[in-house]
Amino acid sequence: MRVLGVDPGLTRCGLGVVDVAASRQATLVGVGVVGSSHELSLEARLLVIAEAVDQWLDAFKPDVLAIERVFAQTNLSTVMGVAQVSGVVMVAAARRGIPVAMHTPSEVKAAVTGNGRADKAHVTAMVTRLLRLDEPPRPADAADALALAIAHAWRSGASFASGSQSTTAAQQLWREAERKSKVTKNKEAPGATWH
Amino acid sequence: MRVLGVDPGLTRCGLGVVDVAASRQATLVGVGVVGSSHELSLEARLLVIAEAVDQWLDAFKPDVLAIERVFAQTNLSTVMGVAQVSGVVMVAAARRGIPVAMHTPSEVKAAVTGNGRADKAHVTAMVTRLLRLDEPPRPADAADALALAIAHAWRSGASFASGSQSTTAAQQLWREAERKSKVTKNKEAPGATWH
Repeated sequence: MRVLGVDPGLTRCGLGVVDVAASRQATLVGVGVVGSSHELSLEARLLVIAEAVDQWLDAFKPDVLAIERVFAQTNLSTVMGVAQVSGVVMVAAARRGIPVAMHTPSEVKAAVTGNGRADKAHVTAMVTRLLRLDEPPRPADAADALALAIAHAWRSGASFASGSQSTTAAQQLWREAERKSKVTKNKEAPGATWH
Repeated sequence: MRVLGVDPGLTRCGLGVVDVAASRQATLVGVGVVGSSHELSLEARLLVIAEAVDQWLDAFKPDVLAIERVFAQTNLSTVMGVAQVSGVVMVAAARRGIPVAMHTPSEVKAAVTGNGRADKAHVTAMVTRLLRLDEPPRPADAADALALAIAHAWRSGASFASGSQSTTAAQQLWREAERKSKVTKNKEAPGATWH
């Protein structure tokens, strides 16, 4: 399963592509950040991001696009821009028939670290480890997009083959994280994240 | 000047096209509402609206797209959907090189009725009168999109020829509204609305 994770933002929009095998092992395919200048008009900034997302979707052909679920309660100064970007990103996927999944930040943190309130350094360290990288992914603020992509693949585990014989290190990490996440309170949103 | 006014919404998105002459007289060109069902996924709903806006832009070729400025402080239950739709609409214009202008609801009400806190019935009555219609535009909830388009043309008056000799009824309405709007407190946003 190939997942494009998108951490939406007007100034910096993180993009991360991972392939996740039936063993649950995740491999880095692509990572980047597309930004737009404050000096541009809002519609020009949105267009910069729209065109980048179009290119990533066409280049990497993901099976699914995973995007952070945005809440009106979050940081009021940036939430409108984040919501506008998320709308643009979702339409780009929809135009190509690529399904969109949304996950909250705490769901992503819980899936990747076992702690729904993990800090950024912890998330980045786990992403680095899970993708078997020698050093943290660059640009640094794209780690959240990779975490989102990994978390999506793991949370939608039903699409993986079951009953595999061997247990990889990633699987062990996953099972441990999953076990812990079940007792982590999610303060942000109820229930399922597929819509 | 031809203006496409967009009143963004996920369930119902109002679209109104008006031509505004140098005399400031406004003429109805097109009006409609595009809606999307709650039963669709969010990305599918956004795509329905994106495709409709694409069609309106290509069919009517407006000089400018005017859209309601959205605030995070507004109705929390719908604001995220409204912001997502507004992002999609702005990108559609930007892809075609059509400038986007944003106006707050109170700016629109002040421009059209002379009262920044006018109710819906008052706005609809003024839109009907200004467009010289025999009855209110249908669908009813598209009146706000028409008001936005008229307000944009009037507020960006610098692009009109000045020094015209005659004063039309619409001009009189406009000057009265403009005079009143200058003493109307705008609680929603400061300063200019072009960005």
